[in-house]
Amino acid sequence: MSKADQIRNAWHTQLLNLFHGFSAFGGTSDGGVSRLAVSEEDKQARDHLCDWFQSNDFSVRVDPVGNIFGILDFGEDYAPSYFFCGSHLDSQPNGGRFDGALGVACACVAGLYLKELIGTGELDPAYRFFVVVNWTGEEGARFQPSLIGSSVFCGTLALDDALKLKDADGMELEHALSQIGYLGTETMPVPERYLELHIEQGGLLEQSEAKLGLVEACWGTRKIRVQIAGRADHTGPTPMEDRRDAMLAAALLIVDVKAVSARSEIELLSSVGRLVVHPNSPNTVADVAELWIEFRSANEDALRDAERQLNACLTDVQEETGCKLRVSNTETRNVTEFDGDGISKAKDALSDKSLPYLNLNTISGHDAVRLQSICPSNLIFVPSKGGISHSPAEFTSDQDICDGFDGMAAVLTSLMTTSNPDPIMKGTER
Amino acid sequence: MSKADQIRNAWHTQLLNLFHGFSAFGGTSDGGVSRLAVSEEDKQARDHLCDWFQSNDFSVRVDPVGNIFGILDFGEDYAPSYFFCGSHLDSQPNGGRFDGALGVACACVAGLYLKELIGTGELDPAYRFFVVVNWTGEEGARFQPSLIGSSVFCGTLALDDALKLKDADGMELEHALSQIGYLGTETMPVPERYLELHIEQGGLLEQSEAKLGLVEACWGTRKIRVQIAGRADHTGPTPMEDRRDAMLAAALLIVDVKAVSARSEIELLSSVGRLVVHPNSPNTVADVAELWIEFRSANEDALRDAERQLNACLTDVQEETGCKLRVSNTETRNVTEFDGDGISKAKDALSDKSLPYLNLNTISGHDAVRLQSICPSNLIFVPSKGGISHSPAEFTSDQDICDGFDGMAAVLTSLMTTSNPDPIMKGTER
Repeated sequence: MSKADQIRNAWHTQLLNLFHGFSAFGGTSDGGVSRLAVSEEDKQARDHLCDWFQSNDFSVRVDPVGNIFGILDFGEDYAPSYFFCGSHLDSQPNGGRFDGALGVACACVAGLYLKELIGTGELDPAYRFFVVVNWTGEEGARFQPSLIGSSVFCGTLALDDALKLKDADGMELEHALSQIGYLGTETMPVPERYLELHIEQGGLLEQSEAKLGLVEACWGTRKIRVQIAGRADHTGPTPMEDRRDAMLAAALLIVDVKAVSARSEIELLSSVGRLVVHPNSPNTVADVAELWIEFRSANEDALRDAERQLNACLTDVQEETGCKLRVSNTETRNVTEFDGDGISKAKDALSDKSLPYLNLNTISGHDAVRLQSICPSNLIFVPSKGGISHSPAEFTSDQDICDGFDGMAAVLTSLMTTSNPDPIMKGTER
Repeated sequence: MSKADQIRNAWHTQLLNLFHGFSAFGGTSDGGVSRLAVSEEDKQARDHLCDWFQSNDFSVRVDPVGNIFGILDFGEDYAPSYFFCGSHLDSQPNGGRFDGALGVACACVAGLYLKELIGTGELDPAYRFFVVVNWTGEEGARFQPSLIGSSVFCGTLALDDALKLKDADGMELEHALSQIGYLGTETMPVPERYLELHIEQGGLLEQSEAKLGLVEACWGTRKIRVQIAGRADHTGPTPMEDRRDAMLAAALLIVDVKAVSARSEIELLSSVGRLVVHPNSPNTVADVAELWIEFRSANEDALRDAERQLNACLTDVQEETGCKLRVSNTETRNVTEFDGDGISKAKDALSDKSLPYLNLNTISGHDAVRLQSICPSNLIFVPSKGGISHSPAEFTSDQDICDGFDGMAAVLTSLMTTSNPDPIMKGTER
């Protein structure tokens, strides 16, 4: 084995140990994890990350929405600017162990790698600070919306509103953060650049020779919450025509949502992943239901059309069931393009090392989408087996993880050498 | 006011005090009650009932499924046989305060009334024992099925199976009973006759001059639980055609169930009151769903036909969604006729007192339906405003309660005077 291979092996071992270590926190017997945002399991994973930061000479800050920053300072010789690299440690209920945690682990070990290159004089960075970030509540599972921590950091969600978000048991995010000891008070400067590594959650890389995807854009989404008010009645004696059945109205709407995407000529994904019914008793006609509807498309017109059609469906279902339907919340995420300069540098770096890559789009949201609103940001993907995600069956092999890390190291080395000539919000503390 | 009126007023006051007193246990600010079976609120109502029994010289027994029996012994002069009269103290979540509790309160005060008539020599009963019963878990809300306590007493549900029933949090009925101190060890003889007073939960009495309904039969029901197995996936990147969406399958089935009853030429009610979805996260395609489906009809053929159609729907939904659907449980309650001799005696008694009545059927199940399988049983109804039930809007006026009690007293006085010539299961202890 060559010296270079031995050194690379050492980085890989460190990465795999750190990454697989996270899987223990909320790990389930089927190989998945249940590590809901700001839960006891999330606290354990956060503690493990902070321990790792301290053992590896990163200084640690926690901000008021619980985002954790592990800061490497390369010294006063370098321009006082910040490069952020990270992802998230929270998961879906019964989710996979790669989604998010892999990006955090890769960022950690990449930081050590950069530090070594700088120490040996092989890298002259344009940034004094390399910061590994764990963003709070990316998944939107326990607390909605998704991307909470990065949205607060980027100013698209007010801190006060975020802290008042409630989980299904009525617990506020502020209280939950305080309970696990991660309601911080510190701030961080806005970075000059952001990079995130994530699993693809799709099957294109797996079907190709490439081990890395350079993500060019993120699809737009409309997340629409609908509240239905019916009337509680006995499921027995109440004549069918007198019922105001919120469960039936919800069912009709779920079927309609599917039909809207099936009818669309432009690719339009849809789902209803969450439905809450009250009182949800076998013998009582439901009086209240609430649905979480999503539409996703690369085309904004298709999304606007879906919203129009959904509104028409609300009226139809209202007429058919006698229930009252109303949109209680809409989250809009427009189609977002990642930093073109970053993609171009990444391509050159990968080509120099003869590492094959694909140009991809992402359908699911990531913290990098939010960061792109305040600084040039890029997202890179590693393969996901069968494209399955948000499931214990989510899988990326150790080999693909290590190949992905090598690609990320090449991209980072390139991005770190030139500062961003025109930072969007330079110097602002968050 | 005549002496008779004064006496009647005293009974009414006692009844209204006892009945409205129960509403405090689990009472909600909107005038309803949430008193789920074997909950802390149910324990409080049970304790209140037992205190009342003790203050009024009833002896108390609790059986192994938590049924409470308050026994009045009229003395050795009378035939050693048992007349049961009762209903249930549990409620739906956010249910009404009349459903069940009114029948228990009326039975209590009726017992005192009978005792007084016997004491003054106005009544020569054919029964030595008058027993007020509170049946456990009639509602089927916290624990399914409904009619748990009376089903165990009547032998249509095995005690061991009942004690192992679990609520939505996985707590077993046995543990819940033990926790509230109502896991009894006593037995009771099978009664020679049973009478239950209940609110109508329909609007026919309200629209008539009658204050009492004599129930001739109970509709049949099929309660069918369906389990759906899909596959968890990210609601974003997963192509629509690759999804196995258990939520969509559930929605299609709910719409189908409604269509089955709409198509039926014979009156057939249907509902899906309860739906449990996993993981129920906005960003994850649901992998598991479970539905509680009900069909109700006075016609057994219509019910059998509905079951056949539902089975065909399961196959269609399976094909359309790629999910696996299976019936995990079916409860069958056949059309039941109440005791004809009892109805005929009740009619004579009411006519003698010039109390107007209606002949009715019941669509909802009651403990009296179970009791009819072991002894001649009758069910009488009092008016429900607007027919609304299983809702805080459930309402019966004090006047209707008192008129109903007077009717019940007349019926009871008649039924108590002649023993059942051919008891079904005389002497068996339960």
